[in-house]
Amino acid sequence: MTEIFYGGDYNPEQWPETVWHEDVKLMQEAGVNLVSVAIFAWSKLEPEEGRYDFGWLDRLLDLLHRHGVGVCLATATAAPPPWLARTYPQSLPVTAQGVRLGVGSRQQYSPSSPDYKRLAAKLVREIATRYKDHPALKLWHVNNEYGCHVSESFDDNSAQAFRVWLRERYGTVEALNEAWGTSFWSQAYGAWDEVTPPAAAPTFLNPTQQLDWRRFCSDALLSLYRMEREILRNITPGIPATTNFIGVHKPLDEWRWAQELDVVSNDAYPDPGAYDAGIYAAFQSDMMRSLKAGAPWILMEQAPNQVQWRARNSLKPPGVMRLWSLQAVARGARGVMFFQWRQSKAGAEKFHSAMVPHAGAEGRTWREVRDLGQELRQLGEVLKSRVQAEAAIVFDWETWWALELDARPSADVRYLEQVYSYYAALWHRNVTVDFVKPDADLSPYKLVLVPNLYLVKDEAAANLERYTEAGGTLALSFFSGIVDENDQVRLGGYPAPFRKLLGLSVEEFDALPVGVTHTVRGEQEFSADLWADVIALEGAEPLATFTEGFYARRPAVTQHSFGKGKSFYLGTRLDGAGMAWLLEKACQTAGVDTTTNLPEGVEAVRRVSDGAGYLTLLNHTDKSVQVELSEAATDLAQGETQVGELTLPPYGVTFLRLQQPAAGTAPTPVKGAKLD
Amino acid sequence: MTEIFYGGDYNPEQWPETVWHEDVKLMQEAGVNLVSVAIFAWSKLEPEEGRYDFGWLDRLLDLLHRHGVGVCLATATAAPPPWLARTYPQSLPVTAQGVRLGVGSRQQYSPSSPDYKRLAAKLVREIATRYKDHPALKLWHVNNEYGCHVSESFDDNSAQAFRVWLRERYGTVEALNEAWGTSFWSQAYGAWDEVTPPAAAPTFLNPTQQLDWRRFCSDALLSLYRMEREILRNITPGIPATTNFIGVHKPLDEWRWAQELDVVSNDAYPDPGAYDAGIYAAFQSDMMRSLKAGAPWILMEQAPNQVQWRARNSLKPPGVMRLWSLQAVARGARGVMFFQWRQSKAGAEKFHSAMVPHAGAEGRTWREVRDLGQELRQLGEVLKSRVQAEAAIVFDWETWWALELDARPSADVRYLEQVYSYYAALWHRNVTVDFVKPDADLSPYKLVLVPNLYLVKDEAAANLERYTEAGGTLALSFFSGIVDENDQVRLGGYPAPFRKLLGLSVEEFDALPVGVTHTVRGEQEFSADLWADVIALEGAEPLATFTEGFYARRPAVTQHSFGKGKSFYLGTRLDGAGMAWLLEKACQTAGVDTTTNLPEGVEAVRRVSDGAGYLTLLNHTDKSVQVELSEAATDLAQGETQVGELTLPPYGVTFLRLQQPAAGTAPTPVKGAKLD
Amino acid sequence: MTEIFYGGDYNPEQWPETVWHEDVKLMQEAGVNLVSVAIFAWSKLEPEEGRYDFGWLDRLLDLLHRHGVGVCLATATAAPPPWLARTYPQSLPVTAQGVRLGVGSRQQYSPSSPDYKRLAAKLVREIATRYKDHPALKLWHVNNEYGCHVSESFDDNSAQAFRVWLRERYGTVEALNEAWGTSFWSQAYGAWDEVTPPAAAPTFLNPTQQLDWRRFCSDALLSLYRMEREILRNITPGIPATTNFIGVHKPLDEWRWAQELDVVSNDAYPDPGAYDAGIYAAFQSDMMRSLKAGAPWILMEQAPNQVQWRARNSLKPPGVMRLWSLQAVARGARGVMFFQWRQSKAGAEKFHSAMVPHAGAEGRTWREVRDLGQELRQLGEVLKSRVQAEAAIVFDWETWWALELDARPSADVRYLEQVYSYYAALWHRNVTVDFVKPDADLSPYKLVLVPNLYLVKDEAAANLERYTEAGGTLALSFFSGIVDENDQVRLGGYPAPFRKLLGLSVEEFDALPVGVTHTVRGEQEFSADLWADVIALEGAEPLATFTEGFYARRPAVTQHSFGKGKSFYLGTRLDGAGMAWLLEKACQTAGVDTTTNLPEGVEAVRRVSDGAGYLTLLNHTDKSVQVELSEAATDLAQGETQVGELTLPPYGVTFLRLQQPAAGTAPTPVKGAKLD
Repeated sequence: MTEIFYGGDYNPEQWPETVWHEDVKLMQEAGVNLVSVAIFAWSKLEPEEGRYDFGWLDRLLDLLHRHGVGVCLATATAAPPPWLARTYPQSLPVTAQGVRLGVGSRQQYSPSSPDYKRLAAKLVREIATRYKDHPALKLWHVNNEYGCHVSESFDDNSAQAFRVWLRERYGTVEALNEAWGTSFWSQAYGAWDEVTPPAAAPTFLNPTQQLDWRRFCSDALLSLYRMEREILRNITPGIPATTNFIGVHKPLDEWRWAQELDVVSNDAYPDPGAYDAGIYAAFQSDMMRSLKAGAPWILMEQAPNQVQWRARNSLKPPGVMRLWSLQAVARGARGVMFFQWRQSKAGAEKFHSAMVPHAGAEGRTWREVRDLGQELRQLGEVLKSRVQAEAAIVFDWETWWALELDARPSADVRYLEQVYSYYAALWHRNVTVDFVKPDADLSPYKLVLVPNLYLVKDEAAANLERYTEAGGTLALSFFSGIVDENDQVRLGGYPAPFRKLLGLSVEEFDALPVGVTHTVRGEQEFSADLWADVIALEGAEPLATFTEGFYARRPAVTQHSFGKGKSFYLGTRLDGAGMAWLLEKACQTAGVDTTTNLPEGVEAVRRVSDGAGYLTLLNHTDKSVQVELSEAATDLAQGETQVGELTLPPYGVTFLRLQQPAAGTAPTPVKGAKLD
Repeated sequence: MTEIFYGGDYNPEQWPETVWHEDVKLMQEAGVNLVSVAIFAWSKLEPEEGRYDFGWLDRLLDLLHRHGVGVCLATATAAPPPWLARTYPQSLPVTAQGVRLGVGSRQQYSPSSPDYKRLAAKLVREIATRYKDHPALKLWHVNNEYGCHVSESFDDNSAQAFRVWLRERYGTVEALNEAWGTSFWSQAYGAWDEVTPPAAAPTFLNPTQQLDWRRFCSDALLSLYRMEREILRNITPGIPATTNFIGVHKPLDEWRWAQELDVVSNDAYPDPGAYDAGIYAAFQSDMMRSLKAGAPWILMEQAPNQVQWRARNSLKPPGVMRLWSLQAVARGARGVMFFQWRQSKAGAEKFHSAMVPHAGAEGRTWREVRDLGQELRQLGEVLKSRVQAEAAIVFDWETWWALELDARPSADVRYLEQVYSYYAALWHRNVTVDFVKPDADLSPYKLVLVPNLYLVKDEAAANLERYTEAGGTLALSFFSGIVDENDQVRLGGYPAPFRKLLGLSVEEFDALPVGVTHTVRGEQEFSADLWADVIALEGAEPLATFTEGFYARRPAVTQHSFGKGKSFYLGTRLDGAGMAWLLEKACQTAGVDTTTNLPEGVEAVRRVSDGAGYLTLLNHTDKSVQVELSEAATDLAQGETQVGELTLPPYGVTFLRLQQPAAGTAPTPVKGAKLD
Repeated sequence: MTEIFYGGDYNPEQWPETVWHEDVKLMQEAGVNLVSVAIFAWSKLEPEEGRYDFGWLDRLLDLLHRHGVGVCLATATAAPPPWLARTYPQSLPVTAQGVRLGVGSRQQYSPSSPDYKRLAAKLVREIATRYKDHPALKLWHVNNEYGCHVSESFDDNSAQAFRVWLRERYGTVEALNEAWGTSFWSQAYGAWDEVTPPAAAPTFLNPTQQLDWRRFCSDALLSLYRMEREILRNITPGIPATTNFIGVHKPLDEWRWAQELDVVSNDAYPDPGAYDAGIYAAFQSDMMRSLKAGAPWILMEQAPNQVQWRARNSLKPPGVMRLWSLQAVARGARGVMFFQWRQSKAGAEKFHSAMVPHAGAEGRTWREVRDLGQELRQLGEVLKSRVQAEAAIVFDWETWWALELDARPSADVRYLEQVYSYYAALWHRNVTVDFVKPDADLSPYKLVLVPNLYLVKDEAAANLERYTEAGGTLALSFFSGIVDENDQVRLGGYPAPFRKLLGLSVEEFDALPVGVTHTVRGEQEFSADLWADVIALEGAEPLATFTEGFYARRPAVTQHSFGKGKSFYLGTRLDGAGMAWLLEKACQTAGVDTTTNLPEGVEAVRRVSDGAGYLTLLNHTDKSVQVELSEAATDLAQGETQVGELTLPPYGVTFLRLQQPAAGTAPTPVKGAKLD
């Protein structure tokens, strides 16, 4: 049976080799089967340019292998050593204000530095050549958290690379002028060398320049990944490669990136001090699964307990680390890894918790880590199944970038917040979703949600229309379909590409001042804020109307029959109750199963395989809860058959194999439940 | 009859020429008679250095002229093209932190760049020569919104120009040392080349250096205006020139600037989301009228509906655009113009509303624009009259600059806020005011208000004293008369130049902490905050006293008879009720008519001409209001005689010709009014 | 009898010499016997490089001497003249963002500039040589407020000096790598020239690098002081030297600095608008006294009334300046001086109050200054006695620096706030404290408080243990003993070096989110916030426990018997009532006298000499208070014998000589008191 990866970042270069021997024994005790090695070892592997020292790494890999621990081997390019900056100062990144960032932390390289690239490629080649046949090698860990600190650089090499990128995109300066709308504010370029990155300027920079800069910056980092991946693929064609994302991260267009990864991996650090951290963790997990269309992904990093980089770093209460780990597995992870194995005694991360704390292999954190490793061995069977989703949310990095540029109607419309508000409303109804690109095949889904799709390409607009016309249910929200891929307004009445689909037009949009709320009235009354569309109906029917301002009695929420399908439109931001109402209505229309008879904070996730169905129940509250099932089920960890009722302790999780195999579209078999 | 200018910025270079033909037809429909052209056209007019392309502009001006639309022709120097920065990087501006600002937005030139100046002058000469005889040419629009984004630059050319400016002002380094008080903190300069702009420094910079820098920066921009104006005057002596201010704008000493303009013009963008936007609009209008002693001015830009540059951009409700437009006319505007004619589809201003919206010539915004154009044709007669003001407020840019330097008793004394608080209190009493310079002839006014005249020159101090002595009524507030033109304290007890006039001295001034209020007691009790003078009476009598702190029972407000006149002094910041009380008292003393029998939010403005009197009534509320007149009047737009009562709908405006011609000092003929 | 110094900064270069003659007369009237001269006179003394002008200073010193005023002569190096920056631009300081700070304010020199050093040394030599025999010369005032604005510079000279400093500290790059833990994040240095100051970087910089930078920056400034002091000592071996601290100032390790000063002096500017300004003033005074183990210090600067550099600058009500002045004397000051003598009429400090205000020698400020000068002549006798303290608080700059680096469990644990919260709790009980270094001899103290001693060296940890074992009472708080001098975690369970002493270990520490409070229950219930230790008892007994979260019922406060002594541990931040409870308990355990029968806000300070005891009573409230003594005492200023009761008016102070000489450990003789 396939095993779930379990382990973490392992930085043995911070410890004497005597400690390594204790480490591997403890790894065995904790069921560790994979560790990420050498992520920050460049300065140890190549202490001066061209002189390599692999002896210690040879010994380490042998030791790990002897103890049954596989290796996710890093290419070590994430943090160049100080000598690189000293010899090649032009390799350092530069901020938009012109400040060159120096050594002493990490990631101090311009993504477009030829010197960095040459030296990184050479290092990767050395490492891959040396370890290509090592039996411990399971996975390549390319670089680390691309764009975490330096996602853009305004140095001369980057400016030059930007111009090359633009020339490839546009061919001629005239085409660039057209796309950027440079007839505005006398910005027309006469030659390529007049074009610059959007560095410090007197006021709002050209929006399309900024948007293309975002695209370029994502691609510039991606080209670094590709460079390393090509080297690795040539030398070790059988070993998969990944790089670890840091969640749903604005600087990287993860749809484009995921195509280049053999397996998606992610670093997830929800804030234990936030009330909805468990929901946000689910959100990230669903995105990671969706990036490669449902393929298993690896939770490459999480904290065993607290982190050190927030202003105030809360502990994870007992059980929460296990809860979030198993949630990841339920939502598609095939590996549960930590940062890091042994807690550093020096450096900027020494107060980041680790599997082995400062006090050694004792205490609560260690015990929870050890127990989880044992438990995961019982759960390998679920890797054969796949998460089941009837609904999808459209997500798009280009819309994210464009929607949050300056000089918009409201600076407070934040894309991720908006998408997440849809996600959370569905989570509370136990509706599992996939994320999809705007131009994805939507036919597998009964319901498609499209929050604030500000920028939309022709093909994507047509795709959404086709989906609905063919019988799909689609819900779209305000400030969608406004611009094309060049951030140029689609003329002809907002939202031009969706007027037919929605049966309405938006005559004006009001950005409500901070603190102002409007009452929206439909079947119930809800509170709304942030935004108000002034809607003219062109076939749609109102579901709720504004009650204040000059657009009182005009629609705030509408529905419309289109072809064989149905569309909903939301012209404002509703409060939580309003979102619950709207999404319940959309689910009902679409025939999407909602499970609302679990107590608030108890999560149900469904998976299916050819031969079985699975149900994971996760209790995110600090109270016990009783759940009554409507069919018999087997507890995977316990191996007992459950009938009728089961108890989830505070932060408890149960993995159940259902009697009814693959009941993909059957309702979740929960009859009822109550909190203690 | 003179026509009121109506139109807006027109940027046809953003559209294909086919659209131009639709534009001119719609302009005719909307009564447009003037458009501002070529403001951001440098890169189109001179796509590379020395190569000019005027063909499109020739066609455009001909087209406009054929359709009866006049042209306010821009000199196109506001936004240099990218090639200029590429060829002359030293022309780019530099921040106080040393950051050079690049291309991609607009206004990226150092005001002291010789290259920018040379190339701008050459362009202006080309344009003026080409169009000097074009029949559409009505007005020159020099540059655009000087100092909007770049009002200062710390580049080497600016440093050199600053030294030249200082040498002209002071003659010798010794005189500069004396004026700047450089014996403080070892700052004495031994030679001119040691003197620098007030760029980044370890702590508080020399205040006089900062003040002179402000003066220099205003003058540096003004010298750009003068350079262009001289070229235009030589080539087209009969065509007036303006440049558009952006309201009461700190970086430009508009008193000095206005002397150089043939006509004042202004861009006004009150925030529709602010409760007092209509009052602030009036404030700006009165300043624009005052800058050239009552001469008609042009509202060069306003938004037809929302803007895009605030964090949250509210709509203007129906009627509000008309309300504020007609208010400008009532307060002296001879033109009502917009930014812009056709809403951009690209660039940083595409979400700024326009006369023709993205949806085309339909919808509320377009209808309001079109209707206003028609209505304005009925109102040309008022241009023969002038606004009538019995009261004046002293306003001074040098005090503004000096008062808000660092290292003052309270950083929260903001000059514009203070002046505006006086203005607003009078607005609520329907007292129309002029603004005047401190050394202006004050004899036309019954009442002169002098808020916080921190910096005062000898001549100005004497002027205020003479005015009062001769029988005027003067109200002066705290922290006035403290320093001379070099920001050097006037010794001898505060406020040294006004002690005699006021009959008091100020022994100490207390800056109240944030959130602390004091009760002040006179005929009534008021709340006060921000500041408390410890006053010693030297002849004045107290009108109200403090009740808290060690200066309890000492005066907070005083009055004093001086010569044939009377002075008031306010030693703290009063709440709204306190300001209303004080200004009512001052108006009564001065014999200034106040009209307080209109409902809150209804504004009355009086104008007079040789043969007639006019009364404009403006309803700033969203409720209807009935007004009963005490004399018969004619509604200009309707042409009907009104007797007795008239109704102002929400945001409604009525222009009335009064029966009694030129009743300059008669009370406003409003008997009473009530809200519906 | 020794006189108390009285006077202030005197900047006669800002005034014509005619004013000097008025100055010296007024000084006599006010009892001034010492003035600080020439602090900002470099540009006047050396108007161009190498040309000196001492004539004016010759005349000034003679004039002062003739009028009985001594001189604290400055070395004039605090503010280099503009020519220095012009000739040696590399001497200017540079921020971490790379901005070079220019002229126009003051302190614009890099502490490591060879040019600045050479020219400063030359100037000092000139001054010392010229005035070494002048009879007015009493004290050298070296530079001024080192590090006030520029406590670090990132210029090339500083980088080079940092490397030299590191090489001296570590000897080899390998040792530096070990201390800094550079195996983390690939930061290992291969050569000295790769090492840089912690300037702008992509993310968290190496903590030990930052800590060493703090040490280096303090030392770099100290080396400037030493350079000047050596010159002065050679030329005028009999004249003591000082430099004025600006309170308990983070950038300077004042323990190290104080060793180099002949006498400690301080500039104290408590905010009159803060409710606890008088307590904070006491805190600073006690530190200044402690820096040289109880030796008299000089209050070198305070404001006669308001300052000008806060956002809002409150007045000192009548009596407060005297109150705080006499408090300084009670707590060890042998001089009470002001900034400044005559209020400037120009420059950035013209709104800073002075002994002679803008209005001249009249008004409240002047009268209070004059009267205090007279009163101080009566108090010289107290200089023979010393302040008596039974308790000590451990204070450590290196802990301060390390505790507040980034990437800690909570960014809101502020060292000074924490220490001050202990100080204030004792102040309210009238327990006078000394501050001590962690490795100081603690045997004189009954009670030692150790707030948040995050960084602790081996010797200091042993010192605290020895003290307790020998019978002392010690109270230590959370996040202590965590790291060694290299900011490397002391492994083996927190707080490793104190586990035995405290009888406990800390398994985890929770950083509470902003706004979250926990209830802690012991004899009473208290509120706690910010931090919660999860404590495992190893012999200690709980005094109070948490009641919330997963660590409910686990200890929050403990006590433990260790050897002959007792230790307390506080694992959270308690509210004021909790601190009062804990410190009362600690004082009782230690046998420290607390005086709690005075009204809130009335302070009692004890001093002893061989022959006498002194009690100063200070009323910090604006109400009168009656105090009943338990023994007869003499009022020093009045010369009358007090029996029974005395009255302190609002802000009143009484200096009493007690009948019982040197009753060092007797209770404070206050029987009772009440507010009017």
